[in-house]
Amino acid sequence: MKKDANIPYKIYLSENEIPKEWYNVRADMKNKPAPLLNPGTLQPMTADDLRPVFCDELIAQELDDTTPYIPIPQEIQDFYKMYRPAPLVRAYCLEEKLQTPAKIYYKFEGNNTSGSHKLNSAIAQAYYAKQQGLKGVTTETGAGQWGTALSMACSYFGLDCQVYMVKVSYEQKPFRREVMRTYGATVTPSPSTTTEVGRKILAEHPGTTGSLGCAISEAVEAESKQEGYRYVLGSVLNQVLLHQTVIGLETKAALDKYNITPDIIIGCAGGGSNLGGLISPFAGEVLRGEKNYQIIAVEPASCPSLTRGVYAYDFCDTGKVCPLAKMYTLGSGFIPSPNHAGGLRYHGMSPVVSQLYHDGIIEARSVEQTAVFEAATQFARVEGILPAPESSHAIRVAIDEALKCKETGEEKTIVFGLTGTGYFDMVAYGKYNDGEMSDYIPTDDDLKAGFDGIPHFPGNEF
Amino acid sequence: MKKDANIPYKIYLSENEIPKEWYNVRADMKNKPAPLLNPGTLQPMTADDLRPVFCDELIAQELDDTTPYIPIPQEIQDFYKMYRPAPLVRAYCLEEKLQTPAKIYYKFEGNNTSGSHKLNSAIAQAYYAKQQGLKGVTTETGAGQWGTALSMACSYFGLDCQVYMVKVSYEQKPFRREVMRTYGATVTPSPSTTTEVGRKILAEHPGTTGSLGCAISEAVEAESKQEGYRYVLGSVLNQVLLHQTVIGLETKAALDKYNITPDIIIGCAGGGSNLGGLISPFAGEVLRGEKNYQIIAVEPASCPSLTRGVYAYDFCDTGKVCPLAKMYTLGSGFIPSPNHAGGLRYHGMSPVVSQLYHDGIIEARSVEQTAVFEAATQFARVEGILPAPESSHAIRVAIDEALKCKETGEEKTIVFGLTGTGYFDMVAYGKYNDGEMSDYIPTDDDLKAGFDGIPHFPGNEF
Repeated sequence: MKKDANIPYKIYLSENEIPKEWYNVRADMKNKPAPLLNPGTLQPMTADDLRPVFCDELIAQELDDTTPYIPIPQEIQDFYKMYRPAPLVRAYCLEEKLQTPAKIYYKFEGNNTSGSHKLNSAIAQAYYAKQQGLKGVTTETGAGQWGTALSMACSYFGLDCQVYMVKVSYEQKPFRREVMRTYGATVTPSPSTTTEVGRKILAEHPGTTGSLGCAISEAVEAESKQEGYRYVLGSVLNQVLLHQTVIGLETKAALDKYNITPDIIIGCAGGGSNLGGLISPFAGEVLRGEKNYQIIAVEPASCPSLTRGVYAYDFCDTGKVCPLAKMYTLGSGFIPSPNHAGGLRYHGMSPVVSQLYHDGIIEARSVEQTAVFEAATQFARVEGILPAPESSHAIRVAIDEALKCKETGEEKTIVFGLTGTGYFDMVAYGKYNDGEMSDYIPTDDDLKAGFDGIPHFPGNEF
Repeated sequence: MKKDANIPYKIYLSENEIPKEWYNVRADMKNKPAPLLNPGTLQPMTADDLRPVFCDELIAQELDDTTPYIPIPQEIQDFYKMYRPAPLVRAYCLEEKLQTPAKIYYKFEGNNTSGSHKLNSAIAQAYYAKQQGLKGVTTETGAGQWGTALSMACSYFGLDCQVYMVKVSYEQKPFRREVMRTYGATVTPSPSTTTEVGRKILAEHPGTTGSLGCAISEAVEAESKQEGYRYVLGSVLNQVLLHQTVIGLETKAALDKYNITPDIIIGCAGGGSNLGGLISPFAGEVLRGEKNYQIIAVEPASCPSLTRGVYAYDFCDTGKVCPLAKMYTLGSGFIPSPNHAGGLRYHGMSPVVSQLYHDGIIEARSVEQTAVFEAATQFARVEGILPAPESSHAIRVAIDEALKCKETGEEKTIVFGLTGTGYFDMVAYGKYNDGEMSDYIPTDDDLKAGFDGIPHFPGNEF
């Protein structure tokens, strides 16, 4: 096997090299992400508007678009040490399999029980809830990684954790549910009859298998009806991207340690938190005019918010109880095909990622799921790790780019985010193994139906 | 949180500190483990006797009880680098939760897709099969870790992999099956109608959910009927323990790096490979009179081969097609209660571990499964990692010992092997979460029925 003598298989930082500050890319953006709007008044949401829903300190982080570095509290740093630093792995075996001159690296965030990067923000959000003296938090989960991560974080700090889990995942992934219960969380399939919004959605769409947008509405309502609770979210929001920058900062530190400069950085994008966290420090260099990278967001062809959505203010949830966010969106009424495996099913995209995409700092591609599982299987067989379907979207494009290098002979350095493991996705892998997986691409009419639900008001043309 | 300033949460070795040789503890044993016997002649099995079943190089390792260090081939070292070194973790959070003065460390072997230590031997066995120019291998798997590990190893080297999976696990763990298929293996529930021995066992015990002993018989028969195939085994044999010493050697290197001397070393024991691999370097020091450690093997109360078995020559498999091994055994006809979750269901115990136990180098304890899951849940909630039920037997005793220290005020250093993760054991966790888990302890009559199947011949008194 070819091997760069100086580059190990896995670049580990030492514990004292784990970042002690998160990086807030908004501070370096000339075009700031648009503020959240109050859907009633269409005015920007203030800290006071947000206080009934979110923890105080998280609101401060949500609204702060000027402070570049935000200290990570010691208790969170301590927790990070239980599963971080995450390795940056040189994919020597994949390179050899592809016979590519490209150098491929992946940042592996799956070495913890949530099986994904989600724990990076879960522990931060649980910490601030605990600091504020709250009793517990409510949340939604799609594929289940976020709910698992939050359950772990809450059990660590002794907080109650109530999870609304998208019904299709609740049924297809009973084991995810049990992991959350093992960590002490209560898990309710969404839409449920436990909330007004859930009952309304069920009445309108009796057979629905749910969506992240529905589950968010239910979790927000559940929070509002309990004393001492707040709502927490696993993606999309600025605060979540901020916490996830620990991924990008570690990646950059590991690359710097060996004087490696990437040409291409690739991440999968559902709500945008992993992608945003991975790319922030690199996007910051681009924004400051210091460096130039090709940064690629990869989304499923079945839920193509960046590549086929519109850039507009839209509701973050199906029940329309949340503020409006300006983002690339398919419309909050867009319910992704249940055919699509795993996460990345959110109708919108993080405002930060949306703005960076709008400004040409990053590009986007959509890929179909059979091609994704083909890449996942190829990767698993040589690199050992069984990747999550979500992460495998990034693998697909990394392999595509490496194969282009094979054509051209270019020795590009490719870095991609391997956000997690696929241990709880074996139903989907089974379908692929049995040749029973199919692709789904929404028609223009499907998309139009979603766009029709986006609110129209002056300044929200699309 | 109390924290030793110099001891990080996780002690990682660098890649060049991964062992380059395995340690063969038999070389330091005055009382060598008894040789395998040909069940027909009752004579020791020679290399020639074993050649139709096992790979040549593995036979050499199996029979070598004098060479203390055996080089690890470069290709295996390269593969080890994909998931090793495994961290030695200081369980600061568990210590705080227990309020114990004890210092607890665990060697975590779950950071790979097999979810366990099994990959350490799987890759070695696949390598030697490939070197010999074979087409493929057959094996059995119980809980599924070994089958997964072997599938990964075979896919890496391009070998065919045929797995006989204990029927109860095949049905309860469909996802394990899919992981193996994703890596290209064929998986057959055992007992099956594809082998003579399987049909015979099915005729005698129509409703049986299988056992490791049955599956071994089937895999050996399947190997014997195909050109270019050999049989490989995931535990019990000397060669497997040898490969697993990479666990103990890394553990010892990590402890030495920080001048830590353990008082107690704890491992769970099914067939004995993880335990043997973890303790070998420490047992070696005891055997050579250099050090003294309390070494504890932990087994399930439902399958108590060390604590309630007899030390005698017995069949390794239910179908009695394998050689006889001298070991602590419950009789090859002993079929563990299907009530018992996870692995550690083998009727016998590695001859090396058996001899060390017989000579008082190690001690043994049995624990009941509800107590094991209680410890597992307690551990998961503070240390983050969701442990495998097998590994949790060791956690149970580690916690018990730490609580004793709390009583006495002793600051003992406890090291235990955390062999893997429980992601595929959520049915069992679910039962525990629902309060529906019960314990099973075989009666003396149950055991007597097993003992009655052990062969009697001169020199095999028990």
